[in-house]
Amino acid sequence: MPPMIPGRLRKAPENFLAPQGRRGFLRGALAAAASGMAVAGARAQVADGDPNILNLPTHSTGLGQPLAEGYGKPSQFEGNVQRRRSPGLTQTTQASVSFAPLQSMFGIVTPSGLHFERHHQGWWDVDPSKHRFMINGLVKSPKVFTMDELMRLPAVSRFHFIECGANTGMEWGNVAVPTCQYTHGMLSCSEFTGVPLVTLLEMAGADFSKGQFVLAEGADGSSMTRTIPMSMIRSGEVLVAYGQNGEMLRPENGYPLRLVVPGVQGVSWVKYLRRVEVGDQPYATKDETVHYVDLMPDGMHRQYTSIQECKSVVTTPSGGQMLLDRGFYSITGLAWSGRGKVRRVDVSVDGGRNWRAAKLETPVLSKCLTRFSCDWVWDGQPAIIQSRAVDETGYVQPNYRQLRAVRGKGSIYHNNAIQSWGVEANGEVKNVQVG
Amino acid sequence: MPPMIPGRLRKAPENFLAPQGRRGFLRGALAAAASGMAVAGARAQVADGDPNILNLPTHSTGLGQPLAEGYGKPSQFEGNVQRRRSPGLTQTTQASVSFAPLQSMFGIVTPSGLHFERHHQGWWDVDPSKHRFMINGLVKSPKVFTMDELMRLPAVSRFHFIECGANTGMEWGNVAVPTCQYTHGMLSCSEFTGVPLVTLLEMAGADFSKGQFVLAEGADGSSMTRTIPMSMIRSGEVLVAYGQNGEMLRPENGYPLRLVVPGVQGVSWVKYLRRVEVGDQPYATKDETVHYVDLMPDGMHRQYTSIQECKSVVTTPSGGQMLLDRGFYSITGLAWSGRGKVRRVDVSVDGGRNWRAAKLETPVLSKCLTRFSCDWVWDGQPAIIQSRAVDETGYVQPNYRQLRAVRGKGSIYHNNAIQSWGVEANGEVKNVQVG
Repeated sequence: MPPMIPGRLRKAPENFLAPQGRRGFLRGALAAAASGMAVAGARAQVADGDPNILNLPTHSTGLGQPLAEGYGKPSQFEGNVQRRRSPGLTQTTQASVSFAPLQSMFGIVTPSGLHFERHHQGWWDVDPSKHRFMINGLVKSPKVFTMDELMRLPAVSRFHFIECGANTGMEWGNVAVPTCQYTHGMLSCSEFTGVPLVTLLEMAGADFSKGQFVLAEGADGSSMTRTIPMSMIRSGEVLVAYGQNGEMLRPENGYPLRLVVPGVQGVSWVKYLRRVEVGDQPYATKDETVHYVDLMPDGMHRQYTSIQECKSVVTTPSGGQMLLDRGFYSITGLAWSGRGKVRRVDVSVDGGRNWRAAKLETPVLSKCLTRFSCDWVWDGQPAIIQSRAVDETGYVQPNYRQLRAVRGKGSIYHNNAIQSWGVEANGEVKNVQVG
Repeated sequence: MPPMIPGRLRKAPENFLAPQGRRGFLRGALAAAASGMAVAGARAQVADGDPNILNLPTHSTGLGQPLAEGYGKPSQFEGNVQRRRSPGLTQTTQASVSFAPLQSMFGIVTPSGLHFERHHQGWWDVDPSKHRFMINGLVKSPKVFTMDELMRLPAVSRFHFIECGANTGMEWGNVAVPTCQYTHGMLSCSEFTGVPLVTLLEMAGADFSKGQFVLAEGADGSSMTRTIPMSMIRSGEVLVAYGQNGEMLRPENGYPLRLVVPGVQGVSWVKYLRRVEVGDQPYATKDETVHYVDLMPDGMHRQYTSIQECKSVVTTPSGGQMLLDRGFYSITGLAWSGRGKVRRVDVSVDGGRNWRAAKLETPVLSKCLTRFSCDWVWDGQPAIIQSRAVDETGYVQPNYRQLRAVRGKGSIYHNNAIQSWGVEANGEVKNVQVG
């Protein structure tokens, strides 16, 4: 490889080739890391011989690729940033999960190519020209819509997270999977576009007095049906959505139509949505009686516990990563609540003894991911990194001791406990459970 | 094809197979369209014979595809939603443009696969492990950063639009290209993540007194260099960015590093960013003296006119689309301002004689796209659809008469005039210029 020499210098700085000292840095906390940078950078300039010969890389002298056009894709150097399944977690890859690589992601938007998957009987690329959406039950005029008809109606676009109710489920039993992709990666966040379901129910003349519940039904072979309370729908939040991050939904996420139920676990965001029925009581379907129930310590189970409570996770540094040297790091992660906005996130680097308020990136939106960050100078000693979110209702994310005191250890779903990442003296970061 | 019958009906509605009347619709404006929907939908149920035989489609009975995993892609049915170049617009496809398909997009986020391209000498997939970013000029300690070093520093994530200064340029001369993809498609909007440039300049000990300007330089063969005023940088808005919509920048958009200069034309968002130099005056580079200047009616030209003034465009209905029948439509489009937030958007369907306030989708963010929409019932008569945006400074988007009174017709850049789409009696929508 040619040495990377930033070319066409207008003025060669006096000390450009000399290793830099620690003076002149404006921000104390950054000094250690920044000093290393200057030295390393300057050395790169003199690699491979005479620094006065500008061995420019090919991309600085040649003619590049023609327009990519069409539909673009990530760099060849980002091939490691992928959704991944956990081998052995499921018996087939049709009824299975792939996890989003949270540790490699920035901000709050999940690229649709990295949106987590949860299929109950595989995915389909349904022809939108043949897809229909029906409304029936307690309505005056049952209706069937084509996609073209739906897409003519007034739509809204809103940023929301979607989290599988089983996210972080393996941690209930101290399995301690290695990375945040596997602990928390059944979580994504998109700008969804669609028609408020309440608009469609009004068009069908729904009985909003008797009709206190709606059954949502998907068109795939899994017979996925879920009960949605009318109170959520009447607020206008629940969408019959076709758009995700500016384009049509992806096939593995329900193309051409899925229900968006902000704050509620992913299973209720019915994919390949073909029908909603208005009824007067919960439907008690297989996926809300046999599955997606929470086994309690006394042997009873909780049912219809579908709202995702306030939760957070540090994504950097996180399990499987390695701190290569001491000095400055920006601890960053994601917080969310199915009840509304995140009000505050605290970060601890000593396993929860001391906490500091993290900075929240704007905009902070309701039932949406919020990115937080917190400065940290690592002294080379073992550390335990945690984050604790508080939502606008005042609910505080619990630690494992608090959560298990109520829920026991028999659950699969709705684990929103504080996640702990242990930093070892050699820089390795591991999944550890504290409290 | 099997008829699409929404299956597993709990209760077959009495009148399910009978054409519906116009009664029972709650929203008057939607009645015409909705009535058509009910009839068309009901008919679909009896296609191909006995409606009691549930000829379910394969995807409702079979086993679907295994996990997509890896990096996903859009549906096979969305192949028409692509970036496209305008044949003949440029002599090569290395120094060229591809336009984003605004007419097919929702909300405000541009999927990175559809982000417009503007290359001056083709694009490259630069190896991030070899890429360096240098700061020199009026600084105490020139610095060279690796990507790893940059990515350890405190980052911010912000939603911003990027628009090429030449967007809508062909319309100056009444070329009237057919679709909004070609009139306005050098426009995209992403969540960008990176380090504020001011942080890096502080680390290098920049002279913020003498250093009133910065030169930004790209690593590709186009020798792209642009002057950025220090006043913009000191506000913290200008980012040295590596993230776009949650993942790394795409190669055709500057991977692994580009400058983000909110509100400013795209050429200043230098791709493959390798260097910034702090100086005491504008640099008058080729791309700010020979190109990207505005020719005025008196033969002089305006230079350094880089802020994108308030602008909007209706994306549906828009040129090349067809209204298939009379009745309800949701007029929708995008508005933006390089000066801050969009305060208001008005819509006209009679070529600017009457205006109605559009609904703005939240969140409305500074120097970011804002989605607007407005209900419309088309009576089948010719119509001219326009949108007019107002930003938080009170600036009102001009019509062509107003814009040309100041700027003449000789410009290429910075056309922010009101766009007009003519709807003909047969439903065809065409690009027309009014006023």
